Amino acid sequence: MVFKRYLFRKVVILGTGLIGGSIGLALKKQGLAGRVVGTSRLETSLRTAVTMGAIDEGEMDLQKAIAGADLVILASPIKVILDNIKDIARHLRRDCIVTDVGSIKSAVIEAAEKYFPGHVLFVGSHPMAGSEKSGVAHASVDLFKGATVIMTPTAKTNKLAKDKIKHLWTKLGADVQVMEPLKHDEVMAFVSHLPHLAAFAIMRSVPDEFLKFGAAGLKDTTRIAASSPKMWGDICFSNYRNVLKSVDEMVKSLAELRKLIIDHDEQALAQFLDGAKTKRELLEKK
Amino acid sequence: MVFKRYLFRKVVILGTGLIGGSIGLALKKQGLAGRVVGTSRLETSLRTAVTMGAIDEGEMDLQKAIAGADLVILASPIKVILDNIKDIARHLRRDCIVTDVGSIKSAVIEAAEKYFPGHVLFVGSHPMAGSEKSGVAHASVDLFKGATVIMTPTAKTNKLAKDKIKHLWTKLGADVQVMEPLKHDEVMAFVSHLPHLAAFAIMRSVPDEFLKFGAAGLKDTTRIAASSPKMWGDICFSNYRNVLKSVDEMVKSLAELRKLIIDHDEQALAQFLDGAKTKRELLEKK
Repeated sequence: MVFKRYLFRKVVILGTGLIGGSIGLALKKQGLAGRVVGTSRLETSLRTAVTMGAIDEGEMDLQKAIAGADLVILASPIKVILDNIKDIARHLRRDCIVTDVGSIKSAVIEAAEKYFPGHVLFVGSHPMAGSEKSGVAHASVDLFKGATVIMTPTAKTNKLAKDKIKHLWTKLGADVQVMEPLKHDEVMAFVSHLPHLAAFAIMRSVPDEFLKFGAAGLKDTTRIAASSPKMWGDICFSNYRNVLKSVDEMVKSLAELRKLIIDHDEQALAQFLDGAKTKRELLEKK
Repeated sequence: MVFKRYLFRKVVILGTGLIGGSIGLALKKQGLAGRVVGTSRLETSLRTAVTMGAIDEGEMDLQKAIAGADLVILASPIKVILDNIKDIARHLRRDCIVTDVGSIKSAVIEAAEKYFPGHVLFVGSHPMAGSEKSGVAHASVDLFKGATVIMTPTAKTNKLAKDKIKHLWTKLGADVQVMEPLKHDEVMAFVSHLPHLAAFAIMRSVPDEFLKFGAAGLKDTTRIAASSPKMWGDICFSNYRNVLKSVDEMVKSLAELRKLIIDHDEQALAQFLDGAKTKRELLEKK
């Protein structure tokens, strides 16, 4: 006799948006979950998610949603993830695995270790996928294909939880990397949070009446300034030490450029720009 | 009897690279030139350009190339354009029209008014098209389709030259705008030179060992950091007053962000980011 076996029987996605919805679509396509329940503050998002086949069932009440779940995925913006941890902590069944998709890990892990009882198995994840768009309507079954997912287990992380979540992301097409939570947050400040803040700062700097002459260069450079201000505000505050460090580094680089231009130092300016170009080429090859 | 009539009999493109080659391809496709001669310091570029049909003939000697030309297009990087003006000034035939494609206009117009004799009809152009790639092999017949070309005539500009060059760019598919040279250089510092320098500065700021975690956000934001360091160095020096002004504005914006994060001023940070997002959306619509 052959049983149909799932990696998880009941998966609950808290926050059925772009990321949560894409996870749902991919879980179902890969046959990894018996049943997928999604939550959202917006009933229309849940209806869309069910229609798209991203979830089997929508539920607006968190505690009803998580009843009996063997996997809960915290897929909201960082501030909501932190609230969710407190709200669900005492209502999760024994051995329930919990992971998240937050782009900052220290704060999430601190909250998880503080609020979750010992019988809840938490492991942090950060899928480096997404776009400047948001909402479940933009979800895609292929969002994680080829994407990097950084997992941040700690000494306290349960091995089974770590292995099952790693298996899940791998099945969704992602390349899983493991990193210390503190290191993760420092790296993200430079490769993600800084470019976002720089894009916002460039847009802030361009006078309104010049905008109509903006071409491909300005558009590419500031595409991510169309991202959610709310979400990015929360990221700045949650990771502020590293974010400030990266912003300071950027100001330092601009000050260097400024000095080289004033000094008319052709050779040193060429070296600066050439070094940046070489690093940019490495980025394309990786 | 019907004569085949050209807008120009002999067009000479000084600098047969991405822009020059694309002009050649489009001139010939539109039947605007009797003959197109291209120059380059590299014989291989000229051979490629002839094979691609971007020019009829390659010539490495500037003065031989321009003999008898009724249109000369200065299509090299800004520093070479400035040298070319001096080198060809005394060898152009009477009523030869000259235009350029330089991304800075004040310096070019100053040189043109200084070196060209009264019988040479100069008008400045800046086609806002291109890419981080360079070389004639990347030239495209459609490069100017839908692009903005800013022309910068002055009180001294000959009307016929202005009209014919405007006609030429329009035939190449561009939307021609007219601007004061000084205003042009200020606008470009903000919408083009600043984003480029910001992209170089972001790459400079990201530690080498973090690069492999760079995703779409970092890639988009720094795509133009793959541009030619030599060309961008020259642009910085040629437009240094405006470039410094735009860099200072960017540093000011980053300092504002820094302060809002340190003060944990959620409302003001949301306003800052939201204002930038709104401007970014205008950019997409224009």
